[in-house]
Amino acid sequence: MIDFVLLIVIAICIIALGLAAILTRNLLSQDEGTPKMREVADAIRVGAEAFIKRQYSTIAVLAVVAAVVIFAIYYFTGQQAIALATAAAFIVGAACSAVAGVVAMWIAVRTNIRTASAAQTSDGKALDFSFRGGAISGLIITSMSLLGVSLTYIALGADPQTTPFVIIGFAFGASFVALFAQLGGGIYTKAADVGADIVGKIEAGIPEDDVRNPATIADLVGDNVGDCAGRGADLFESTAAENIGAMILGVALFPIFGVNGILFPIVMCSLGLLASMIGILSVKGVDGADPMDAMNRGYYITALISAVFLAGGVYYLLGATPGWMYFVLAGFVGIALSVAFLRVTLYYTDHHYRPVQDIADASETGAGTNLIMGFSVGLETTAIPAVLIGVSLLASYWCGTQTGIPQGGLYGTAVATIGMLMVCAYVLTMDTFGPIADNAGGIVEMSQAPDAVRHRMDKLDAAGNTTKALTKGYAIGSASLAVFLLFNAYMADISKLTGKAFEVVNLANVNVFVGALIGAMLVFLFASLAIRAVSKTAQSVIDAVRIQFKDPAIMAGTKKPDYAAVIDITTQGALKNMVLPGALVIIFPIIIGVTMKYEALAGFLMVATITGILMALILNNSGGAWDNAKKYIETGVHGGKKSEAHKAAVIGDTVGDPFKDTAGPSLHVLIKLLATLTLVLAPLFI
Amino acid sequence: MIDFVLLIVIAICIIALGLAAILTRNLLSQDEGTPKMREVADAIRVGAEAFIKRQYSTIAVLAVVAAVVIFAIYYFTGQQAIALATAAAFIVGAACSAVAGVVAMWIAVRTNIRTASAAQTSDGKALDFSFRGGAISGLIITSMSLLGVSLTYIALGADPQTTPFVIIGFAFGASFVALFAQLGGGIYTKAADVGADIVGKIEAGIPEDDVRNPATIADLVGDNVGDCAGRGADLFESTAAENIGAMILGVALFPIFGVNGILFPIVMCSLGLLASMIGILSVKGVDGADPMDAMNRGYYITALISAVFLAGGVYYLLGATPGWMYFVLAGFVGIALSVAFLRVTLYYTDHHYRPVQDIADASETGAGTNLIMGFSVGLETTAIPAVLIGVSLLASYWCGTQTGIPQGGLYGTAVATIGMLMVCAYVLTMDTFGPIADNAGGIVEMSQAPDAVRHRMDKLDAAGNTTKALTKGYAIGSASLAVFLLFNAYMADISKLTGKAFEVVNLANVNVFVGALIGAMLVFLFASLAIRAVSKTAQSVIDAVRIQFKDPAIMAGTKKPDYAAVIDITTQGALKNMVLPGALVIIFPIIIGVTMKYEALAGFLMVATITGILMALILNNSGGAWDNAKKYIETGVHGGKKSEAHKAAVIGDTVGDPFKDTAGPSLHVLIKLLATLTLVLAPLFI
Repeated sequence: MIDFVLLIVIAICIIALGLAAILTRNLLSQDEGTPKMREVADAIRVGAEAFIKRQYSTIAVLAVVAAVVIFAIYYFTGQQAIALATAAAFIVGAACSAVAGVVAMWIAVRTNIRTASAAQTSDGKALDFSFRGGAISGLIITSMSLLGVSLTYIALGADPQTTPFVIIGFAFGASFVALFAQLGGGIYTKAADVGADIVGKIEAGIPEDDVRNPATIADLVGDNVGDCAGRGADLFESTAAENIGAMILGVALFPIFGVNGILFPIVMCSLGLLASMIGILSVKGVDGADPMDAMNRGYYITALISAVFLAGGVYYLLGATPGWMYFVLAGFVGIALSVAFLRVTLYYTDHHYRPVQDIADASETGAGTNLIMGFSVGLETTAIPAVLIGVSLLASYWCGTQTGIPQGGLYGTAVATIGMLMVCAYVLTMDTFGPIADNAGGIVEMSQAPDAVRHRMDKLDAAGNTTKALTKGYAIGSASLAVFLLFNAYMADISKLTGKAFEVVNLANVNVFVGALIGAMLVFLFASLAIRAVSKTAQSVIDAVRIQFKDPAIMAGTKKPDYAAVIDITTQGALKNMVLPGALVIIFPIIIGVTMKYEALAGFLMVATITGILMALILNNSGGAWDNAKKYIETGVHGGKKSEAHKAAVIGDTVGDPFKDTAGPSLHVLIKLLATLTLVLAPLFI
Repeated sequence: MIDFVLLIVIAICIIALGLAAILTRNLLSQDEGTPKMREVADAIRVGAEAFIKRQYSTIAVLAVVAAVVIFAIYYFTGQQAIALATAAAFIVGAACSAVAGVVAMWIAVRTNIRTASAAQTSDGKALDFSFRGGAISGLIITSMSLLGVSLTYIALGADPQTTPFVIIGFAFGASFVALFAQLGGGIYTKAADVGADIVGKIEAGIPEDDVRNPATIADLVGDNVGDCAGRGADLFESTAAENIGAMILGVALFPIFGVNGILFPIVMCSLGLLASMIGILSVKGVDGADPMDAMNRGYYITALISAVFLAGGVYYLLGATPGWMYFVLAGFVGIALSVAFLRVTLYYTDHHYRPVQDIADASETGAGTNLIMGFSVGLETTAIPAVLIGVSLLASYWCGTQTGIPQGGLYGTAVATIGMLMVCAYVLTMDTFGPIADNAGGIVEMSQAPDAVRHRMDKLDAAGNTTKALTKGYAIGSASLAVFLLFNAYMADISKLTGKAFEVVNLANVNVFVGALIGAMLVFLFASLAIRAVSKTAQSVIDAVRIQFKDPAIMAGTKKPDYAAVIDITTQGALKNMVLPGALVIIFPIIIGVTMKYEALAGFLMVATITGILMALILNNSGGAWDNAKKYIETGVHGGKKSEAHKAAVIGDTVGDPFKDTAGPSLHVLIKLLATLTLVLAPLFI
């Protein structure tokens, strides 16, 4: 018997998919621009599809191996009953995560050309197209995540007290694929970008997206496979993992809330999806207006409606508890945190504020001071977010304890996480809008469209940079709030397996302390390898471009450079270099857990998470600030383009590229991967 | 009645001071070189003395305020009996730490000129002088630390069961001064260095230490106030804090070991001082030989004799316990870790190995890739050290548990720490040798001595760079092993104050988790502010130098630049910019402890320590690797000096400067400051 509220979830998801279908049909019927534009867009599409195909083939092999290992672990540790179900859930989660990435890429490579074409006549229309392209991804990915969890829950028997512990396989599958998708895509996009910039902008002195640069198409492919496909998989697994974490907590509260406490997270997220649809439809581009105005308004509409839905949902599902109002308050804490994170990220990465201006100032004395200042800003950006996370955790926990129910505090943090997750579909829309606008700008530039068209796209591109930075802030903020939930899920799982309560992770125990030390180290090592992978792949790109630049016909613009050769080199490099960092973060926790057992592994997990959150902030924000300091100088300050300050700022931007688009976003996934991995492999660690 | 073993400690310290006096007399009687050399050396000495005077005046004010606060806290929390004693111990510790810094600087500014003079005829003699200059500092600082702890112990009543809890004031005083000394000196040295390099080497294209550059003298002053005075204060407080931490642990074991268990750490360190004296006297410079050979041999002699003394000392003091041999093993783990850390640091910062070569390779494609690679190497350097620390902690803990006594495991880690600390005086010698050689090189360069003399000094300077990197590795390694001890001291102190056992720091508790998150954040924020302080101060230096460079007479070399003006600007900037980061790391733990109480503060302390250790490794080693990649290119590879690769490597070196000489070393102090601060202010947090 399927619970009534599950039907609400499924219904809302179907509505969202329907809206996505309508938007897609509408979008595909739009004009595809000039033949020159189509030529560029086709090259991007072919390159992106080729990469995704090869990448997901590699990931599929790794996922099948992982599924077999999971099955074997469960089978041989006395968990035969759920071995097949867990492995199957893993495969389903992995497959859905892959589909999420492919969908995001598929839409993006079709929207970019239509946006470019629209920009020929209207910037409002260009915003509409690129934003709706993002919306299609956002709606499909979010509803797939909710449908995936709901249907897996039903398929696995819908027993409120045991099924949540089996669906963790789904979350791990999603994280597993997301890690490699984000890592491979992130390496691809930045190796191409850094390579194109270093040889093009710095050595040869030609502009960005110049047709003569053989790395430009690879760079534009990168926006689709890294930012769209990677982030799509990332947010897919976030919603999946966080919902499942909250469901496991609901199991502990089953005596109080019944099945409502378990289904609460997915019901609320589906209501958030509804709110996001309204928010999305409220966005309408206006010629000459700042695109951020329309998108910000849509965001606040979504947040407001989500808050109303949250109150209603808590009342409907948990209203039997006298203190239910406190859960509403906890949910508001989550929504408030999402707004606060966006504001802080804006402060640190927008040129209207002190940090980016400081970096621009420091560029006057050269690349050395630009880099020192940028790195210093990056480290500084951990401060306010850490305090915000701390206060939100304590506040939502406090709210929960006021309800007077056992484990109420923890459930308070769960409700806050859910509150933050409700706006997910809208945020994903803004996020995917960024690379689409970026790509459309590249197409306009490479098809040598008139200046007016370029200016329209420049404005949209700048807004895209802002939304990309903001959504990274959102992603890491929601992850931080969710981790406490995921720790609890791990501890509940261990308690269930060992049959005795596991409630203390004693950092004063030498094993736990060493586990914690290794956990923190793993984050740095992973970031090192992710950054190095970009550097290695970029060096191959640079070598390839330099060889082509030796041909005077290419530099003169009379001969078309060999774009495909660079695409191929980047693809090979990205796939080769994603395996080591990816494998490490899977192997390390297993070694610690097997040799030092579950409490040390909990220390590992918790301190790796803390370090991962802070390190992701550092990498994302310093990269964003360097990028915008360069763009700020390009507006004419400090000597403008071609000044020494600009040259210094370009170097800063190059360094920031792998920070903000490879290592940083991969750390988002890493945090959740560690949590889902320890959950699924828990039988090994007792 | 003073314990007999304390007399051994005092006697060895007096011998060490006697040896230092003989070496000083001998050194001061040496030739002071050409008048031109003396002119440069005098300017350095005057600048260094002026800075130290102003810096310590500022620190003195801060320390007096802190002493009053400590007194008030103890007085008003019912600890009247030890309020005055704790505040007095703080003042004594602070004063000794200040004297340690002044001594290191005083010797250094007198040894540099004599080394430069010796280099006119013999590189062996130049090594002897600079190494002995370092030895004088090493011997005085180590014996002052041991004498300080011993005499304070006696003055405070020598009651084995209560006095150790009062001497923590001494350790906090030492850490307090060391933090500001290292921070202020570190900002000074790197602001001058970065400023001199950017305007001199990068903009004007003149060589390092060129007489025309008005920032050169400030740069040379910086070596003395940052590297000598700063590191002197750092290692002084390390030995003090770690000895006292081990003594507090000894209190818990009083029923088993009696007073021997409490005095064990200082007795062993004094035996290590004896071993270091033998090692120091074994070093003899040979013309034409690699200076590292002689110093490495001396190091291994010291380590070997220390191992023998360790075995004897354990037998003599703890031999009544049947399993005493296991403590010897634990001590060997510590000595082995010190050797392993030196090897790993060498691997990551020496151009004979892959990491530095990778950075040099990456310089070929410009500053962007040089920086990306260098940063990646820095992050990677956390991996092996973290594993080494983890294994050493577990191994020494295991050894301790094999003795079968209660808390034996913890005492095992204490013995390992002591084992590592035994070679401290020798390491400090090698460390101070570095900046002395660097300074002597600067004097030779600025006095326009013949090429043969310069070549002799270049070799010594290169060895100095290596020893500086190695000793930073040692400092962070010994700190990592000691922290577990210091945590335990804090927990023992809290147990004593509350009257109930405090043995669990539960990271799964939301308060503790938030404390841990804020602790990790504080490390990043502190590093940010320390790096920013260099950047800010360097920008003032750059502006001042640029104005002077506009005078054609200065560039032509016919007019002497105004060195004093730059020294003054650097001094002001360093003192102004050291206050904020220094104040933050004192205020933050107090806020957390007062609002969230002692268990959350323990989480804060432990995770801040983990993050601090790893971050210090990243900053020290990436900085060292960038520096040596530049030097490697200067040997002629990748196009040698004046190539594009070299320009890129100079930018990398500039970025690495505040990492390795300001933020990194200050983090060493920060780790111990947090531990001693929480110990001393414990009454506030219950």
